[in-house]
Amino acid sequence: MDDKKFVKEIQSKEEDYSRWYLDIVKKADLMDYGPVKGTMIIKPYGYAIWENMQQDMDRRIKETGHENAYFPLLIPESYLKKEMNHVEGFAPEVAWVTKGGNEELEEPLVIRPTSETIICSMMSDWIQSYRDLPMKLNQWANVMRWEKSTKPFLRTSEFLWQEGHTAHATHEEAEEEAMQMLEVYRAFAEEFLAMPVVAGIKTENEKFAGAEHTYSIEALMSDGKALQAGTSHHLGQNFSKVFDIQYSDKDNQMQYAYQTSWGSSTRMVGGLIMTHSDDRGLALPPKVAPIQVVIVPILRGDKEMVKDKAHELAKQLKALNIRAKVDDREEMTPGWKFNEYEMRGVPVRVELGPKDIEKNQFVLARRDTGEKAFLSLDSFTQTIQDTLAEIQVNMYNKAKHFMDSHTYEINSLEEMKEQLLQEKGFMKSWWCGDIACLDHVKEETGVTPRNIPFEQREGHDKCLVCEKESSTTVLFARAY
Amino acid sequence: MDDKKFVKEIQSKEEDYSRWYLDIVKKADLMDYGPVKGTMIIKPYGYAIWENMQQDMDRRIKETGHENAYFPLLIPESYLKKEMNHVEGFAPEVAWVTKGGNEELEEPLVIRPTSETIICSMMSDWIQSYRDLPMKLNQWANVMRWEKSTKPFLRTSEFLWQEGHTAHATHEEAEEEAMQMLEVYRAFAEEFLAMPVVAGIKTENEKFAGAEHTYSIEALMSDGKALQAGTSHHLGQNFSKVFDIQYSDKDNQMQYAYQTSWGSSTRMVGGLIMTHSDDRGLALPPKVAPIQVVIVPILRGDKEMVKDKAHELAKQLKALNIRAKVDDREEMTPGWKFNEYEMRGVPVRVELGPKDIEKNQFVLARRDTGEKAFLSLDSFTQTIQDTLAEIQVNMYNKAKHFMDSHTYEINSLEEMKEQLLQEKGFMKSWWCGDIACLDHVKEETGVTPRNIPFEQREGHDKCLVCEKESSTTVLFARAY
Repeated sequence: MDDKKFVKEIQSKEEDYSRWYLDIVKKADLMDYGPVKGTMIIKPYGYAIWENMQQDMDRRIKETGHENAYFPLLIPESYLKKEMNHVEGFAPEVAWVTKGGNEELEEPLVIRPTSETIICSMMSDWIQSYRDLPMKLNQWANVMRWEKSTKPFLRTSEFLWQEGHTAHATHEEAEEEAMQMLEVYRAFAEEFLAMPVVAGIKTENEKFAGAEHTYSIEALMSDGKALQAGTSHHLGQNFSKVFDIQYSDKDNQMQYAYQTSWGSSTRMVGGLIMTHSDDRGLALPPKVAPIQVVIVPILRGDKEMVKDKAHELAKQLKALNIRAKVDDREEMTPGWKFNEYEMRGVPVRVELGPKDIEKNQFVLARRDTGEKAFLSLDSFTQTIQDTLAEIQVNMYNKAKHFMDSHTYEINSLEEMKEQLLQEKGFMKSWWCGDIACLDHVKEETGVTPRNIPFEQREGHDKCLVCEKESSTTVLFARAY
Repeated sequence: MDDKKFVKEIQSKEEDYSRWYLDIVKKADLMDYGPVKGTMIIKPYGYAIWENMQQDMDRRIKETGHENAYFPLLIPESYLKKEMNHVEGFAPEVAWVTKGGNEELEEPLVIRPTSETIICSMMSDWIQSYRDLPMKLNQWANVMRWEKSTKPFLRTSEFLWQEGHTAHATHEEAEEEAMQMLEVYRAFAEEFLAMPVVAGIKTENEKFAGAEHTYSIEALMSDGKALQAGTSHHLGQNFSKVFDIQYSDKDNQMQYAYQTSWGSSTRMVGGLIMTHSDDRGLALPPKVAPIQVVIVPILRGDKEMVKDKAHELAKQLKALNIRAKVDDREEMTPGWKFNEYEMRGVPVRVELGPKDIEKNQFVLARRDTGEKAFLSLDSFTQTIQDTLAEIQVNMYNKAKHFMDSHTYEINSLEEMKEQLLQEKGFMKSWWCGDIACLDHVKEETGVTPRNIPFEQREGHDKCLVCEKESSTTVLFARAY
């Protein structure tokens, strides 16, 4: 088999980014298309990535005092209709169940596009007194928003996510919660996925349907387009008023609860891919990689001896909770395997032949830098541990450097248009606060406001559209 | 608050088993009813039980060489219709999606009642050569089978489960797989849930719609009714032929694959409850209990000192991965807490007052036996570890004793009727092999064949209905 087979088959990123992305998800065997438009199958290697993400995110959610629960998939139409902005936002994109068994349903049911309405309807029963607050729930679930096209992981009708739903006694507490969960998302993205993000608050026109305000983290993909990687909503009393979530406070007065909701999804898998991968295929930060180290024995001479040594090394790594795999198949050449695991994004490759063993050495190849080195077997496990840690940091730094060097201070619509002709990226611009100016930017350039970053440009200047004096900067970008 | 409050509110098991069960699931705060008929919410305490089950089952599934994946929720009607027995079995109980967004769908979609059809349609693409076999997949998912009534955990429209789907080159391999997974279920039920089961093969009339044959594990609930706790199906080539799952073998001949599927669900939570619980409420084996040890400080004298000691002990337990909790709320009496945690099935309670600390002792109360003992704090963690292990074994033994003493050898329909008037349980009877005889038993008594146990009665005797000589014994019972 041609050693270069897989490399050749991946479309170059420069030439066609979209094709490159599709090549990677298919050839790294992360997914396949389902029979219904807008659907996909998450294949084992892709699902293993998601499981690693879930495990780490779940730990963070529990450590911040939330409990998991499970709410029904189907929501009565009447529930969806209760919060006016919410139904306007979601009704056009829901799937409708109209028949159960052999009977037409009296009231159509929707497959949850998100679960605020059904969870609020239950919270209304569960919350009676200030002693029942705060109530901090999370669920891992599938949700559905009707789509006709499929962009694997990024845009599919059904996707997997976690959605947190909380109720609090005061506005302040709900605000703290919404901010805390945004921080959980930021830390997860940067520490676990090595994916730098910009945290901020959404502009009014981009907030969640039914929220008082929405916070988001926005990541910059390697084509200069933005990806929203997590959102946290302060719902105020919008839902508690329509679902009657009232509690009696310490003075026995009835009060409406303040609420939040927040979600992160399999979309992040797409973000992960577009942050780190290259023309050789997928690249995964060690923390999220299903296989962290692949050991490829070079089967010459005393094959069994080499295999045994490879398995012994893998065992040493596994004892340290390092996800190691030996590929000792004889029908594939080492070169084929090197390409295969590079293409699947395995952070570290160990090569080990009979001569290496004789010299008490091994070859270590890094997926992130492409470097290869001969190193002593004496400090094998320590070397691997250190290298994995280094790769995690290096991948973050590389992505951070890309983001920083592709973040532009833009002072007028003209400058923005020029920038888009050169190179895409995050664009920080002054904005007067008028939604009409945002709409104008979008019409003229296709660029949308990602958020109002917590880290603002210093000083003040003219709005990029209307030229009114303003002291707020907005993060703009073309977005997925 | 009245210390006996919760105890009084639980209906006695003897008087009304069904009411007793509903009292437990509600008062132990495991679930609530959803707004749509047939639906339920799994509340945090119930979900924590399910998460523990999932974690242990997932480990067993992965250790036997399976990989997790995720397939779409919605299945085209035409897929469901491909396997004749399958559609006959499931069509009457599926939910239909007929509208997506604002458009009527050309082809209605069903919410998966199980995923054989969609997974087979994909396997048909993925499997080309003998090198692609075996393919061993599993998914954790929600499924839906339309119901109008709700029996929490036992019978609901939507439920959570894992479903394994595999493809193999030969009949033998598929058979080994089906048997292996039945063994995984048996081991899980007995080792983890402390729930003894009878393993066997389903009779033809009770097998899975589309299977060649079905294996099951059957547990005996404390009211003498059976609960099917896991099934493993050998599908033969039934699905591979209609979905065209063909592979070229080593001689380049095209062959249809042999398949299995197997599932276990949140139904097991119901089985867990009905195996171990009593009139004091839920009782949980330590391995599955979300809280394994609750420490209740008796807040007299130097309250802070007592609280500190309680938290220190909990820390020691947590360091050993024991799920410990301190309830040091001052607004509840110790007596209220004792009842509360008994009702929630916490296996071990530690009581600790200022006098105990002075005497270097603590009170250990066991949920399974009700025993209380004063023990030395010197060997605190060891005592707790030993006690948890003992409780796990004791609960299994108790349940096994119940099952064994409620398993009857029944030789005629008359004997069966008499037995049912006395006490319900498993009934092992000779059966000639004619389905008509099984139907007759059901009509006359409401009793169904659970399975043909691997452990057969020795010898041979007359069929309990037609009196033909037979050497097969069937496990009969009324069932959930």
